[in-house]
Amino acid sequence: MAAHPRWFQALSKAVSIPENKGKSVYQIATVDTHNTPHVRSHIHRAFLVPNSYSAVPLLLTTTDVRTPKATQMLSNPAVEVAWWLEGSQEQFRVAGRVAVVPAPDHPFHTMQDTPRGSAFAKLGEDGEQGGAGGKFDWEKKRREVFDSMSAHMKASWARPPPASEIASYDDAKAWPETIKNLGEAETEDEKKDQEKALKNFALVVIEPLTVDWVQLGVIPNRRTFFKRLEAEGNGDEWVETIQVP
Amino acid sequence: MAAHPRWFQALSKAVSIPENKGKSVYQIATVDTHNTPHVRSHIHRAFLVPNSYSAVPLLLTTTDVRTPKATQMLSNPAVEVAWWLEGSQEQFRVAGRVAVVPAPDHPFHTMQDTPRGSAFAKLGEDGEQGGAGGKFDWEKKRREVFDSMSAHMKASWARPPPASEIASYDDAKAWPETIKNLGEAETEDEKKDQEKALKNFALVVIEPLTVDWVQLGVIPNRRTFFKRLEAEGNGDEWVETIQVP
Repeated sequence: MAAHPRWFQALSKAVSIPENKGKSVYQIATVDTHNTPHVRSHIHRAFLVPNSYSAVPLLLTTTDVRTPKATQMLSNPAVEVAWWLEGSQEQFRVAGRVAVVPAPDHPFHTMQDTPRGSAFAKLGEDGEQGGAGGKFDWEKKRREVFDSMSAHMKASWARPPPASEIASYDDAKAWPETIKNLGEAETEDEKKDQEKALKNFALVVIEPLTVDWVQLGVIPNRRTFFKRLEAEGNGDEWVETIQVP
Repeated sequence: MAAHPRWFQALSKAVSIPENKGKSVYQIATVDTHNTPHVRSHIHRAFLVPNSYSAVPLLLTTTDVRTPKATQMLSNPAVEVAWWLEGSQEQFRVAGRVAVVPAPDHPFHTMQDTPRGSAFAKLGEDGEQGGAGGKFDWEKKRREVFDSMSAHMKASWARPPPASEIASYDDAKAWPETIKNLGEAETEDEKKDQEKALKNFALVVIEPLTVDWVQLGVIPNRRTFFKRLEAEGNGDEWVETIQVP
């Protein structure tokens, strides 16, 4: 088992120090089919480290599968994340490829490739979470993450499609405010809302290919660049270079 | 003179309230020639509001003209900014076009279009800052912004090219640590370093075409979308729609 790469040690440390408490927001850039860039803030939910591939930790966040960004990620899985950790004045830029993991019956499932040698593929070989046929159980993970969200956050996926036009801010008052954990919905309405939210909820999983770490909190400033040797078939090896900030 | 658009009033207010003190960092997304997205943190320096076009406030930030992003902005001026204001839980996503304003003798000057009816063009018609031939004096603005930076920040543009490889973090100890204000350099070395920094320093000017304002600090959450009617020749009119967050 390969060791965690040094950038991941640095990032794990940065997010755990008191100065960066609550700094779990990063920005994800995507490209649409007109080659126009888009970027928006996401809440980092977890790192996902394949048992047999610990050199390639994945970044896990979430979305509503009906958003334009989900479609952008599907048509061009190249993404870049900028994670500014204000407390320690560090920036981690993670470039890689993304996978959107919606409900099992969503058409996105058959529209995404799992590149050979990728961490996504390795997770499939692991079978570490007991999925059928030795596959990673993404649906189990999706439900687990869904349940870990606040009742208010869950309700956000039961709204009408994001960015659709409404007549007034007051329209929002007709939408569910909270949604219960799986297995805890009681009334018919609660069950219907929960079902709708779970149907629209998707994981966003980012597999890093390069990481650009800039430390502005140290003098002189430092910049370190990490690149995975995937192109040469050594997917779990990282090359590290020191760069001008 | 048209009034400031409502998104600008909201953004100006958001950045000025105590909860958002110091929240002057946003992320700018660009696309490279392979249609791969890139994103990094920038420090917002100022809004630039054309006298005769106050409906189109520009966002002003800075860069080193030798960075890959400067080239990306030149080859594809479509950019998007995500400005997360943590204190008030608001996000402003500003999509538009960018101009890079380097030293007057830099080749970038002849390689960028100034679209007719754009705020860039309007600034040129204004002559409000006394440039030759009724043009906005960008070089005066560039020097003014350069001088407003800290001595340490100024020194960052006198380093070797950003992202070039170095042998050790200690290489940085040979670089200038501070650079004086224009007109205040005394020794030959101080003058040489200042000249180098000023040569590499560039303004980044973003002209908004759409603004997506999400308010997560109010319950129910609100989302408001603003679009400039530029395509129809009404460049200073904004259409506002209320959307599902």
